[in-house]
Amino acid sequence: MSRVLAELTVDECLTLLAGTPMGRVVFTDRALPAIRPVNHIVDAGAVIIRSRLGGSVASTVGSARGVVVAYQADQIDPHEHTGWSVVATGTARLVTDPADKARYERLLRPWVSMDADCVIRIEPQLLTGYRLVDPAAAAR
Amino acid sequence: MSRVLAELTVDECLTLLAGTPMGRVVFTDRALPAIRPVNHIVDAGAVIIRSRLGGSVASTVGSARGVVVAYQADQIDPHEHTGWSVVATGTARLVTDPADKARYERLLRPWVSMDADCVIRIEPQLLTGYRLVDPAAAAR
Repeated sequence: MSRVLAELTVDECLTLLAGTPMGRVVFTDRALPAIRPVNHIVDAGAVIIRSRLGGSVASTVGSARGVVVAYQADQIDPHEHTGWSVVATGTARLVTDPADKARYERLLRPWVSMDADCVIRIEPQLLTGYRLVDPAAAAR
Repeated sequence: MSRVLAELTVDECLTLLAGTPMGRVVFTDRALPAIRPVNHIVDAGAVIIRSRLGGSVASTVGSARGVVVAYQADQIDPHEHTGWSVVATGTARLVTDPADKARYERLLRPWVSMDADCVIRIEPQLLTGYRLVDPAAAAR
C-alpha cells in the first residue's frame, strides 16, 4: 500500500490544524532537538498552546523577538497508510496581553495539570502539509 | 479531564516504540526546527527509519559523526486525554553496511513511494516518555 504525497495549500493546512485538538511543538533546547505533544486552538491564523516549555526556551520565548519553532499535527492511519500531516514554522511568543491571555485560558484547557503554565502564540511564517494519497485513486 | 504525567522507564519507552509503526523524526534544517512523520522499526535498541532527509541534514547524517535528532512517537486519545508519548534523542547515521541495509529494506517498507531513500539508524542516548494518567486512578 504505497502512497504518494499530495501537497496541501496554506488554507487547507490551516483548516486541518484548526480541526484537530492536538499537535507537537518542536524547538531547540540547549542545542538539542526537542518535541512535546500539546493541545492547541487556532485563532486568527495563529496556533495557541499552553505549556511550560522550560529550559533555555523559557527565556527566549518570553523575549520580544520570540523563538522560531515548528508546530506539527497529523492524522495518519497506520493500517491504511492514509491521512495528512501539517507543519507550521514560525515565531513563538508569550501572550502577555491580559485580556488575550484570559480569553485563551478560558478557551484552551491543558490536558495535563500544570503549575504556572504559559500561553504561547505561534505565528506561522511557513505552512506546509500533505495528504498520503493512493496513486491509483489520484490518477482517476 | 485533567491528567497527570507518569514517567516511563527506558525499557517501557523502548517497548512502546517497538510496538508502534510510526513516529516523527525531529532535526534542524538550515537552522530551523524540522519534523517529518515516518514509519519505523526498532532493532537491537535502535530506531531504524527510511527517509530522504534532504537539505543540510543529508550531508551530516552521512558523516561518520552523524547528526543528533529526536524521534518521537505517541498514542494519545484526544477525547479521553489518555495515552503515552516517547522521545528518543540520539545520533542518526546512515546505514552503509550492505547486509544491514538490505535486511532493513526488506523489513521496513516506506509508506510513501520514494526515489533514492536512505536507511538511517538512530541510536538513542536519551529515552524519555510518560503516560497521561487519571489522578484519581493513580491515587488508588
